[in-house]
Amino acid sequence: MKKKAVVLSSGGIDSTTAMAIAAQEGFTLFSLSFDYGQRHRCELAAAGRVAVFFNVDKHLVLKIDMGAIGGSALTTDMAVPKEREISDVENDIPVTYVPARNTIFLSYGLAWAEVLAASDIVIGVNAVDYSGYPDCRPAFIQAYQAMANLATKAAVQGHMAVRIHTPLIHMTKAQIIQTGAALGVDYALTHSCYDPSPAGLACGRCDSCVLRRKGFQEAGVPDPTQYSI
Amino acid sequence: MKKKAVVLSSGGIDSTTAMAIAAQEGFTLFSLSFDYGQRHRCELAAAGRVAVFFNVDKHLVLKIDMGAIGGSALTTDMAVPKEREISDVENDIPVTYVPARNTIFLSYGLAWAEVLAASDIVIGVNAVDYSGYPDCRPAFIQAYQAMANLATKAAVQGHMAVRIHTPLIHMTKAQIIQTGAALGVDYALTHSCYDPSPAGLACGRCDSCVLRRKGFQEAGVPDPTQYSI
Repeated sequence: MKKKAVVLSSGGIDSTTAMAIAAQEGFTLFSLSFDYGQRHRCELAAAGRVAVFFNVDKHLVLKIDMGAIGGSALTTDMAVPKEREISDVENDIPVTYVPARNTIFLSYGLAWAEVLAASDIVIGVNAVDYSGYPDCRPAFIQAYQAMANLATKAAVQGHMAVRIHTPLIHMTKAQIIQTGAALGVDYALTHSCYDPSPAGLACGRCDSCVLRRKGFQEAGVPDPTQYSI
Repeated sequence: MKKKAVVLSSGGIDSTTAMAIAAQEGFTLFSLSFDYGQRHRCELAAAGRVAVFFNVDKHLVLKIDMGAIGGSALTTDMAVPKEREISDVENDIPVTYVPARNTIFLSYGLAWAEVLAASDIVIGVNAVDYSGYPDCRPAFIQAYQAMANLATKAAVQGHMAVRIHTPLIHMTKAQIIQTGAALGVDYALTHSCYDPSPAGLACGRCDSCVLRRKGFQEAGVPDPTQYSI
Protein backbone atom coordinates (compact mmCIF):
# COMPACT_ATOMS: atom_id res chain seq x y z
CA MET A 1 0.00 0.00 0.00
CA LYS A 2 1.23 3.46 -0.83
CA LYS A 3 2.11 5.73 2.07
CA LYS A 4 -0.11 8.74 2.65
CA ALA A 5 1.20 12.29 2.85
CA VAL A 6 -0.61 15.44 3.90
CA VAL A 7 0.59 18.27 1.66
CA LEU A 8 -0.02 21.88 2.69
CA SER A 9 -1.18 23.56 -0.50
CA SER A 10 -1.49 27.29 -1.06
CA GLY A 11 -1.91 27.03 -4.80
CA GLY A 12 1.43 28.80 -5.29
CA ILE A 13 4.66 27.74 -6.93
CA ASP A 14 6.32 26.35 -3.83
CA SER A 15 3.61 24.13 -2.40
CA THR A 16 2.72 22.90 -5.89
CA THR A 17 6.33 21.91 -6.55
CA ALA A 18 6.52 20.23 -3.14
CA MET A 19 3.40 18.26 -4.10
CA ALA A 20 4.98 17.22 -7.40
CA ILE A 21 8.00 15.90 -5.49
CA ALA A 22 5.78 13.98 -3.04
CA ALA A 23 3.84 12.50 -5.97
CA GLN A 24 7.06 11.44 -7.63
CA GLU A 25 8.19 9.82 -4.37
CA GLY A 26 5.07 7.66 -4.54
CA PHE A 27 2.91 9.10 -1.78
CA THR A 28 -0.86 9.06 -1.92
CA LEU A 29 -1.66 12.76 -1.64
CA PHE A 30 -4.02 14.56 0.74
CA SER A 31 -3.91 18.28 0.08
CA LEU A 32 -4.83 20.80 2.76
CA SER A 33 -5.62 24.46 2.16
CA PHE A 34 -6.79 27.25 4.43
CA ASP A 35 -9.42 29.88 3.93
CA TYR A 36 -8.01 32.26 6.53
CA GLY A 37 -9.42 35.55 5.39
CA GLN A 38 -6.44 36.19 3.11
CA ARG A 39 -7.07 39.01 0.67
CA HIS A 40 -5.64 36.92 -2.17
CA ARG A 41 -8.38 34.33 -1.93
CA CYS A 42 -8.05 33.29 -5.55
CA GLU A 43 -5.14 31.17 -4.31
CA LEU A 44 -7.86 28.82 -3.03
CA ALA A 45 -9.14 28.32 -6.56
CA ALA A 46 -5.56 27.66 -7.63
CA ALA A 47 -5.16 25.08 -4.85
CA GLY A 48 -8.30 23.36 -6.13
CA ARG A 49 -6.92 23.24 -9.69
CA VAL A 50 -3.63 21.86 -8.39
CA ALA A 51 -5.47 19.15 -6.42
CA VAL A 52 -7.25 18.04 -9.60
CA PHE A 53 -3.98 18.16 -11.59
CA PHE A 54 -2.29 15.78 -9.12
CA ASN A 55 -5.40 13.61 -8.68
CA VAL A 56 -5.17 13.84 -4.89
CA ASP A 57 -7.09 11.38 -2.77
CA LYS A 58 -8.79 14.21 -0.90
CA HIS A 59 -8.54 18.00 -0.93
CA LEU A 60 -9.65 19.67 2.29
CA VAL A 61 -10.17 23.43 2.67
CA LEU A 62 -10.42 24.51 6.29
CA LYS A 63 -12.04 27.82 7.08
CA ILE A 64 -10.13 29.35 9.97
CA ASP A 65 -10.32 32.72 11.58
CA MET A 66 -6.94 34.47 11.51
CA GLY A 67 -8.22 37.93 10.67
CA ALA A 68 -9.56 38.27 14.22
CA ILE A 69 -5.99 37.94 15.48
CA GLY A 70 -4.73 40.61 13.11
CA GLY A 71 -1.13 41.65 12.75
CA SER A 72 -0.73 41.12 9.01
CA ALA A 73 -1.36 42.96 5.78
CA LEU A 74 -2.57 39.66 4.32
CA THR A 75 -5.55 39.38 6.66
CA THR A 76 -6.38 43.01 7.43
CA ASP A 77 -6.74 46.22 5.47
CA MET A 78 -3.08 47.23 5.90
CA ALA A 79 -1.59 48.13 2.52
CA VAL A 80 0.35 45.44 0.70
CA PRO A 81 3.79 46.91 -0.14
CA LYS A 82 4.64 47.30 -3.80
CA GLU A 83 7.79 47.67 -5.85
CA ARG A 84 10.22 47.12 -3.04
CA GLU A 85 13.87 46.49 -3.84
CA ILE A 86 14.63 42.80 -4.32
CA SER A 87 17.20 42.96 -1.50
CA ASP A 88 14.49 44.15 0.88
CA VAL A 89 12.08 41.50 -0.34
CA GLU A 90 14.66 38.83 0.40
CA ASN A 91 15.87 40.07 3.79
CA ASP A 92 13.10 41.85 5.67
CA ILE A 93 10.26 40.44 7.65
CA PRO A 94 7.49 42.24 5.75
CA VAL A 95 4.04 43.35 6.89
CA THR A 96 2.65 40.46 4.86
CA TYR A 97 4.14 38.15 7.51
CA VAL A 98 1.22 36.39 9.25
CA PRO A 99 1.94 35.69 12.93
CA ALA A 100 2.64 32.00 13.56
CA ARG A 101 1.08 31.04 10.23
CA ASN A 102 3.17 27.97 9.46
CA THR A 103 2.88 26.86 13.09
CA ILE A 104 -0.90 26.97 12.80
CA PHE A 105 -0.98 25.36 9.34
CA LEU A 106 1.35 22.53 10.36
CA SER A 107 -0.77 21.92 13.46
CA TYR A 108 -3.83 21.29 11.33
CA GLY A 109 -1.69 19.14 9.04
CA LEU A 110 -0.64 17.15 12.09
CA ALA A 111 -4.24 16.70 13.23
CA TRP A 112 -5.36 15.51 9.79
CA ALA A 113 -2.31 13.24 9.46
CA GLU A 114 -3.23 11.57 12.73
CA VAL A 115 -6.81 10.98 11.61
CA LEU A 116 -5.58 9.57 8.27
CA ALA A 117 -2.89 7.46 9.98
CA ALA A 118 -0.33 9.29 7.85
CA SER A 119 3.09 10.05 9.24
CA ASP A 120 4.31 12.35 6.49
CA ILE A 121 3.53 16.06 6.20
CA VAL A 122 4.90 18.08 3.29
CA ILE A 123 5.37 21.85 3.39
CA GLY A 124 6.91 23.94 0.63
CA VAL A 125 8.83 26.38 2.79
CA ASN A 126 12.11 27.71 1.60
CA ALA A 127 14.75 29.54 3.57
CA VAL A 128 16.40 31.19 0.58
CA ASP A 129 13.87 33.54 -0.95
CA TYR A 130 11.99 33.93 2.33
CA SER A 131 14.92 34.23 4.68
CA GLY A 132 12.98 36.90 6.56
CA TYR A 133 10.23 34.51 7.67
CA PRO A 134 11.25 32.77 10.90
CA ASP A 135 8.89 29.88 10.29
CA CYS A 136 10.54 28.97 6.99
CA ARG A 137 13.92 28.08 8.51
CA PRO A 138 15.33 24.58 9.09
CA ALA A 139 15.71 25.15 12.85
CA PHE A 140 12.00 25.91 13.15
CA ILE A 141 11.02 22.83 11.14
CA GLN A 142 13.27 20.57 13.22
CA ALA A 143 11.79 21.93 16.45
CA TYR A 144 8.28 21.52 15.06
CA GLN A 145 8.94 17.89 14.18
CA ALA A 146 10.33 17.18 17.66
CA MET A 147 7.23 18.72 19.22
CA ALA A 148 4.90 16.86 16.84
CA ASN A 149 6.36 13.55 17.92
CA LEU A 150 5.25 14.29 21.47
CA ALA A 151 1.88 15.78 20.56
CA THR A 152 -0.34 13.03 19.23
CA LYS A 153 -1.80 9.76 20.37
CA ALA A 154 -0.38 8.03 17.30
CA ALA A 155 3.14 9.33 17.89
CA VAL A 156 3.10 8.59 21.61
CA GLN A 157 1.73 5.09 21.18
CA GLY A 158 4.69 4.48 18.93
CA HIS A 159 3.14 3.56 15.62
CA MET A 160 3.64 6.86 13.85
CA ALA A 161 6.86 8.86 13.80
CA VAL A 162 5.90 12.19 12.29
CA ARG A 163 8.16 13.46 9.54
CA ILE A 164 7.93 17.01 8.22
CA HIS A 165 9.19 17.09 4.63
CA THR A 166 10.62 20.35 3.32
CA PRO A 167 11.98 19.40 -0.10
CA LEU A 168 12.47 23.01 -1.20
CA ILE A 169 14.04 24.44 1.92
CA HIS A 170 17.47 25.04 0.42
CA MET A 171 16.38 25.88 -3.15
CA THR A 172 16.15 29.27 -4.79
CA LYS A 173 12.91 30.17 -6.54
CA ALA A 174 14.62 29.46 -9.87
CA GLN A 175 15.69 26.00 -8.75
CA ILE A 176 12.18 25.29 -7.49
CA ILE A 177 10.71 26.23 -10.86
CA GLN A 178 13.27 24.16 -12.74
CA THR A 179 12.55 21.18 -10.49
CA GLY A 180 8.80 21.49 -10.97
CA ALA A 181 9.08 22.04 -14.70
CA ALA A 182 11.18 18.87 -14.98
CA LEU A 183 8.41 17.01 -13.11
CA GLY A 184 5.77 18.31 -15.52
CA VAL A 185 4.12 20.89 -13.26
CA ASP A 186 1.82 23.28 -15.15
CA TYR A 187 2.54 26.55 -13.36
CA ALA A 188 -0.31 28.26 -15.21
CA LEU A 189 -2.54 26.57 -12.61
CA THR A 190 -0.79 28.33 -9.74
CA HIS A 191 -1.30 31.74 -8.15
CA SER A 192 1.19 33.87 -6.18
CA CYS A 193 0.02 37.50 -6.09
CA TYR A 194 -0.84 38.98 -2.68
CA ASP A 195 -3.05 41.67 -4.20
CA PRO A 196 -4.72 40.46 -7.39
CA SER A 197 -7.20 42.48 -9.44
CA PRO A 198 -10.90 41.66 -9.07
CA ALA A 199 -10.56 39.57 -12.24
CA GLY A 200 -7.71 37.61 -10.62
CA LEU A 201 -4.82 39.13 -12.57
CA ALA A 202 -1.49 39.27 -10.71
CA CYS A 203 -0.45 42.82 -9.78
CA GLY A 204 3.16 42.26 -10.85
CA ARG A 205 4.43 44.57 -8.10
CA CYS A 206 3.96 42.93 -4.67
CA ASP A 207 6.79 40.92 -3.08
CA SER A 208 5.27 37.65 -4.19
CA CYS A 209 4.94 38.76 -7.84
CA VAL A 210 8.46 40.19 -7.81
CA LEU A 211 9.92 36.89 -6.58
CA ARG A 212 7.80 34.87 -9.04
CA ARG A 213 8.84 36.92 -12.08
CA LYS A 214 12.48 36.86 -11.08
CA GLY A 215 12.27 33.09 -10.49
CA PHE A 216 10.96 32.32 -13.97
CA GLN A 217 13.53 34.64 -15.55
CA GLU A 218 16.42 33.06 -13.69
CA ALA A 219 15.11 29.55 -14.29
CA GLY A 220 14.90 30.17 -18.02
CA VAL A 221 11.35 28.82 -17.95
CA PRO A 222 8.54 30.76 -19.72
CA ASP A 223 6.35 32.57 -17.15
CA PRO A 224 2.70 31.66 -17.83
CA THR A 225 1.39 34.31 -15.41
CA GLN A 226 -1.01 37.03 -16.58
CA TYR A 227 0.18 40.23 -14.91
CA SER A 228 -1.92 43.38 -14.99
CA ILE A 229 1.22 45.46 -15.61
CA MET B 1 3.31 48.42 33.08
CA LYS B 2 1.77 45.05 33.81
CA LYS B 3 2.85 42.14 31.64
CA LYS B 4 0.28 40.67 29.30
CA ALA B 5 -0.64 37.00 29.24
CA VAL B 6 -2.75 35.10 26.74
CA VAL B 7 -4.80 32.54 28.67
CA LEU B 8 -6.43 29.66 26.80
CA SER B 9 -9.91 29.47 28.28
CA SER B 10 -12.37 26.63 27.82
CA GLY B 11 -14.72 27.76 30.54
CA GLY B 12 -13.88 24.66 32.56
CA ILE B 13 -12.33 24.19 35.99
CA ASP B 14 -8.73 23.89 34.83
CA SER B 15 -8.39 26.88 32.52
CA THR B 16 -10.40 29.04 34.94
CA THR B 17 -8.08 28.13 37.79
CA ALA B 18 -5.04 28.78 35.58
CA MET B 19 -6.51 32.20 34.83
CA ALA B 20 -6.98 32.90 38.55
CA ILE B 21 -3.31 32.07 39.11
CA ALA B 22 -2.21 34.35 36.25
CA ALA B 23 -4.39 37.15 37.66
CA GLN B 24 -2.85 36.70 41.09
CA GLU B 25 0.63 36.83 39.51
CA GLY B 26 -0.28 40.28 38.19
CA PHE B 27 -0.70 39.66 34.48
CA THR B 28 -3.07 41.68 32.33
CA LEU B 29 -5.31 38.94 30.96
CA PHE B 30 -6.27 38.20 27.35
CA SER B 31 -8.52 35.16 27.21
CA LEU B 32 -8.78 33.02 24.09
CA SER B 33 -11.52 30.49 23.39
CA PHE B 34 -12.33 28.35 20.38
CA ASP B 35 -15.61 27.62 18.70
CA TYR B 36 -14.42 24.40 17.08
CA GLY B 37 -17.66 22.58 16.48
CA GLN B 38 -17.53 20.96 19.89
CA ARG B 39 -20.83 19.40 20.88
CA HIS B 40 -20.55 20.95 24.35
CA ARG B 41 -20.76 24.50 23.03
CA CYS B 42 -22.18 25.89 26.24
CA GLU B 43 -18.58 25.90 27.43
CA LEU B 44 -18.24 29.02 25.26
CA ALA B 45 -20.89 30.77 27.34
CA ALA B 46 -18.97 29.68 30.44
CA ALA B 47 -15.73 31.09 29.01
CA GLY B 48 -17.53 34.39 28.46
CA ARG B 49 -18.76 34.46 32.06
CA VAL B 50 -15.26 33.67 33.30
CA ALA B 51 -13.80 36.51 31.18
CA VAL B 52 -16.23 38.94 32.80
CA PHE B 53 -15.47 37.55 36.28
CA PHE B 54 -11.73 38.18 35.81
CA ASN B 55 -12.24 41.50 34.05
CA VAL B 56 -9.96 40.48 31.17
CA ASP B 57 -8.61 43.11 28.85
CA LYS B 58 -10.02 41.28 25.83
CA HIS B 59 -11.83 37.98 25.29
CA LEU B 60 -11.44 36.54 21.80
CA VAL B 61 -13.47 33.61 20.48
CA LEU B 62 -12.03 32.14 17.29
CA LYS B 63 -14.26 30.08 15.07
CA ILE B 64 -12.15 27.26 13.69
CA ASP B 65 -13.05 24.23 11.67
CA MET B 66 -11.93 21.05 13.40
CA GLY B 67 -15.01 18.98 12.63
CA ALA B 68 -13.89 18.71 8.99
CA ILE B 69 -10.78 16.90 10.19
CA GLY B 70 -12.81 14.45 12.27
CA GLY B 71 -11.33 11.79 14.51
CA SER B 72 -13.03 12.75 17.76
CA ALA B 73 -16.30 12.17 19.56
CA LEU B 74 -16.21 15.82 20.60
CA THR B 75 -16.49 17.16 17.06
CA THR B 76 -18.41 14.42 15.24
CA ASP B 77 -21.48 12.31 15.92
CA MET B 78 -19.51 9.49 17.58
CA ALA B 79 -21.07 8.60 20.94
CA VAL B 80 -19.57 10.19 24.04
CA PRO B 81 -18.72 7.35 26.43
CA LYS B 82 -20.60 7.28 29.72
CA GLU B 83 -20.06 5.72 33.13
CA ARG B 84 -16.60 4.42 32.48
CA GLU B 85 -14.52 3.19 35.39
CA ILE B 86 -12.45 5.95 36.94
CA SER B 87 -9.25 3.96 36.27
CA ASP B 88 -10.10 3.93 32.56
CA VAL B 89 -10.95 7.62 32.60
CA GLU B 90 -7.57 8.39 34.08
CA ASN B 91 -5.42 6.09 31.95
CA ASP B 92 -6.92 5.66 28.47
CA ILE B 93 -6.74 7.94 25.51
CA PRO B 94 -10.52 8.20 25.01
CA VAL B 95 -12.52 8.83 21.83
CA THR B 96 -13.09 12.36 23.14
CA TYR B 97 -9.41 13.01 22.40
CA VAL B 98 -9.26 15.65 19.65
CA PRO B 99 -6.26 15.15 17.35
CA ALA B 100 -3.55 17.74 17.99
CA ARG B 101 -5.99 20.01 19.84
CA ASN B 102 -3.60 21.62 22.27
CA THR B 103 -1.03 22.00 19.49
CA ILE B 104 -3.58 23.93 17.44
CA PHE B 105 -4.86 25.97 20.39
CA LEU B 106 -1.36 26.92 21.53
CA SER B 107 -0.50 27.94 17.96
CA TYR B 108 -3.33 30.46 17.91
CA GLY B 109 -2.26 31.58 21.37
CA LEU B 110 1.23 32.11 20.01
CA ALA B 111 -0.07 34.14 17.07
CA TRP B 112 -2.18 36.36 19.31
CA ALA B 113 0.65 36.76 21.80
CA GLU B 114 2.91 37.98 19.03
CA VAL B 115 0.34 40.55 17.89
CA LEU B 116 -0.16 41.73 21.49
CA ALA B 117 3.61 41.78 22.16
CA ALA B 118 2.96 39.34 25.00
CA SER B 119 5.50 36.67 25.82
CA ASP B 120 3.42 34.63 28.25
CA ILE B 121 0.85 32.00 27.31
CA VAL B 122 -1.08 30.17 30.00
CA ILE B 123 -2.69 26.76 29.49
CA GLY B 124 -4.48 24.75 32.16
CA VAL B 125 -3.26 21.31 31.15
CA ASN B 126 -2.64 18.73 33.79
CA ALA B 127 -0.80 15.48 33.45
CA VAL B 128 -2.42 13.81 36.45
CA ASP B 129 -6.11 13.48 35.69
CA TYR B 130 -5.51 13.48 31.93
CA SER B 131 -2.46 11.27 31.80
CA GLY B 132 -3.94 9.69 28.68
CA TYR B 133 -3.70 12.88 26.61
CA PRO B 134 -0.24 13.17 25.06
CA ASP B 135 -0.57 16.93 24.66
CA CYS B 136 -1.04 17.46 28.41
CA ARG B 137 2.40 16.16 29.41
CA PRO B 138 5.41 18.24 30.46
CA ALA B 139 7.59 16.85 27.65
CA PHE B 140 5.10 18.08 25.06
CA ILE B 141 4.88 21.54 26.62
CA GLN B 142 8.67 21.85 26.76
CA ALA B 143 8.99 20.86 23.11
CA TYR B 144 6.22 23.30 22.19
CA GLN B 145 7.97 26.15 23.96
CA ALA B 146 11.26 25.36 22.22
CA MET B 147 9.48 25.38 18.85
CA ALA B 148 7.61 28.59 19.67
CA ASN B 149 10.86 30.38 20.32
CA LEU B 150 11.92 29.67 16.75
CA ALA B 151 8.53 30.34 15.18
CA THR B 152 7.80 34.03 15.40
CA LYS B 153 9.26 37.30 14.26
CA ALA B 154 9.21 38.60 17.85
CA ALA B 155 11.07 35.59 19.23
CA VAL B 156 13.64 35.51 16.45
CA GLN B 157 14.32 39.23 16.63
CA GLY B 158 15.15 38.63 20.27
CA HIS B 159 12.69 40.83 22.08
CA MET B 160 10.22 38.17 23.14
CA ALA B 161 11.14 34.84 24.73
CA VAL B 162 7.93 32.84 24.72
CA ARG B 163 7.04 31.14 27.95
CA ILE B 164 4.26 28.55 28.19
CA HIS B 165 2.86 28.52 31.71
CA THR B 166 1.25 25.30 32.97
CA PRO B 167 0.56 26.06 36.62
CA LEU B 168 -1.67 23.00 37.06
CA ILE B 169 0.41 20.40 35.30
CA HIS B 170 1.31 18.40 38.41
CA MET B 171 -1.92 18.97 40.37
CA THR B 172 -4.78 16.56 40.87
CA LYS B 173 -8.28 17.83 40.12
CA ALA B 174 -8.87 18.17 43.87
CA GLN B 175 -5.74 20.29 44.31
CA ILE B 176 -6.79 22.46 41.36
CA ILE B 177 -10.19 23.08 42.92
CA GLN B 178 -8.67 23.84 46.32
CA THR B 179 -6.24 26.28 44.71
CA GLY B 180 -8.97 28.04 42.78
CA ALA B 181 -11.32 28.14 45.75
CA ALA B 182 -8.56 29.77 47.83
CA LEU B 183 -8.18 32.39 45.07
CA GLY B 184 -11.91 33.13 45.12
CA VAL B 185 -12.93 31.39 41.89
CA ASP B 186 -16.68 30.94 41.53
CA TYR B 187 -16.85 27.51 39.93
CA ALA B 188 -20.60 27.91 39.36
CA LEU B 189 -19.55 29.97 36.32
CA THR B 190 -17.65 27.05 34.79
CA HIS B 191 -18.78 24.17 32.60
CA SER B 192 -17.18 20.75 32.13
CA CYS B 193 -19.72 18.29 30.68
CA TYR B 194 -18.99 16.84 27.21
CA ASP B 195 -22.63 16.03 26.56
CA PRO B 196 -24.94 18.50 28.29
CA SER B 197 -28.73 18.47 28.03
CA PRO B 198 -30.37 20.99 25.68
CA ALA B 199 -30.98 23.17 28.75
CA GLY B 200 -27.25 23.04 29.56
CA LEU B 201 -27.39 20.65 32.52
CA ALA B 202 -24.32 18.48 33.02
CA CYS B 203 -24.93 14.79 32.22
CA GLY B 204 -23.08 13.60 35.32
CA ARG B 205 -21.86 10.50 33.51
CA CYS B 206 -19.25 11.47 30.88
CA ASP B 207 -15.53 11.36 31.71
CA SER B 208 -15.45 15.09 32.29
CA CYS B 209 -18.40 15.04 34.72
CA VAL B 210 -16.95 12.01 36.51
CA LEU B 211 -13.62 13.79 37.07
CA ARG B 212 -15.34 17.02 38.11
CA ARG B 213 -17.57 15.35 40.68
CA LYS B 214 -14.71 13.32 42.10
CA GLY B 215 -12.54 16.46 42.23
CA PHE B 216 -15.02 18.45 44.31
CA GLN B 217 -15.58 15.48 46.62
CA GLU B 218 -11.86 14.95 47.20
CA ALA B 219 -11.24 18.69 47.58
CA GLY B 220 -13.91 18.98 50.24
CA VAL B 221 -15.37 21.92 48.33
CA PRO B 222 -19.15 22.08 47.65
CA ASP B 223 -19.90 21.23 43.99
CA PRO B 224 -22.09 24.02 42.53
CA THR B 225 -22.80 22.02 39.36
CA GLN B 226 -26.37 21.21 38.30
CA TYR B 227 -26.28 17.62 37.09
CA SER B 228 -29.25 16.09 35.30
CA ILE B 229 -28.74 12.85 37.26
